[in-house]
Amino acid sequence: MSERPRERALVLTSGGVDSSTLLALKVEQLGAEDVFALCVFYGQRHRRELDSARAIARHYGVEQRFCDLSGIFSDSDCSLLEHSSEQVPRESYAEQLEKTDGAPVSTYVPFRNGLFLSAAAAEALSLRCTEVCYGAHHDDWAGNAYPDCSAAFVDAMGAAIEEGTGGQLHLEAPFVRWSKADIVREGLRLGVPYELTWSCYNGGDRPCGTCGTCIDRARAFAACGVADPLLESTAEDEEV
Amino acid sequence: MSERPRERALVLTSGGVDSSTLLALKVEQLGAEDVFALCVFYGQRHRRELDSARAIARHYGVEQRFCDLSGIFSDSDCSLLEHSSEQVPRESYAEQLEKTDGAPVSTYVPFRNGLFLSAAAAEALSLRCTEVCYGAHHDDWAGNAYPDCSAAFVDAMGAAIEEGTGGQLHLEAPFVRWSKADIVREGLRLGVPYELTWSCYNGGDRPCGTCGTCIDRARAFAACGVADPLLESTAEDEEV
Repeated sequence: MSERPRERALVLTSGGVDSSTLLALKVEQLGAEDVFALCVFYGQRHRRELDSARAIARHYGVEQRFCDLSGIFSDSDCSLLEHSSEQVPRESYAEQLEKTDGAPVSTYVPFRNGLFLSAAAAEALSLRCTEVCYGAHHDDWAGNAYPDCSAAFVDAMGAAIEEGTGGQLHLEAPFVRWSKADIVREGLRLGVPYELTWSCYNGGDRPCGTCGTCIDRARAFAACGVADPLLESTAEDEEV
Repeated sequence: MSERPRERALVLTSGGVDSSTLLALKVEQLGAEDVFALCVFYGQRHRRELDSARAIARHYGVEQRFCDLSGIFSDSDCSLLEHSSEQVPRESYAEQLEKTDGAPVSTYVPFRNGLFLSAAAAEALSLRCTEVCYGAHHDDWAGNAYPDCSAAFVDAMGAAIEEGTGGQLHLEAPFVRWSKADIVREGLRLGVPYELTWSCYNGGDRPCGTCGTCIDRARAFAACGVADPLLESTAEDEEV
């Protein structure tokens, strides 16, 4: 009888609230030595979130890989990309969706999360992991803003990873039916150092406060009745 | 009522028999101006197949994109990769599978085709295509040699692409239940210039004739009762 392989997880990390909380959760469950992080550069407007991803992985003592998939998006005019002439909208996702006629928001990067999960699956197999972990949550999907965050997408992608690796790997997305506030609540329990994370689509020293993800993040912390430690720490920086 | 978008296809091409035949089929169906080709370098041992992919796209007058995804496989020890110390087996897939205890063959690159299809989906959306075309066939799956060529994988990946793009894109894999001989037969009808293609896992001037894919290719042409024009053309080169 073949022994069940030891559980080892590769977490897709972006330096934001969701994936940082997921990394913390997996470290709690498996221990840092059986958790890996993968961070992808895809041509986004700034590297601030990559620095955050690095800081979070270092905080948890987790081995991290970086990869550059920006080449594949060179034909895209998505507003999140540094070569795009489109502006990042200064509105919530709900406000944007009123104008898109059912299409994803302009910050949807073409099949980005499918590509990231596939890259994570490839890397995870090479590192002899048994699972790929993905921090997608319900608010990001809501109203089809980001179809590659939906539960239906996660189910299909999970089946593709299971089938395409001959059952060697499975996809875990524990937050897929959670709100962002649920994630922050879990992160507060876990003691995630949110002052190290970054969500804003724009770079700079402080979050802009007006892009879709800044608005979402602020609402999540407000729903938990706590101040966002990132805003506090960057405000302190400014005072210095 | 919104108009149905014009059909435009992105074909994942490797320079081999299957994807070259698929490209020919899509050009027959849609015309060259609505067909694009994507070719991926993933760190394979030679660039001969990329040259073939380029020659085939040029033959059909199809616009082609190249991308480099080799970075993601740097931790893999798959025998197809140039940095690997493993040897490419000189056996048919069936012979290899007798020794793998249900695992994929050693030339299975971790979730490679999932990654390629995700990259193709990202590129296809950017190019305003409506479908991604994939030349996987039954012989490559058989016995789980390459689980990322199975019909179950194709179905799941197709659902992931459909869901993850908000229904903007679908996956077509018309050969998934065909044998390689069926594909060659279709290619002969279409007049595919097989002398421009390349299948062998090893580089060089002539196919090695002993690796899994050389054996498969030879059987497919033999089953159709024709000589492989690639062998004839490279034999001629040698005589010169």
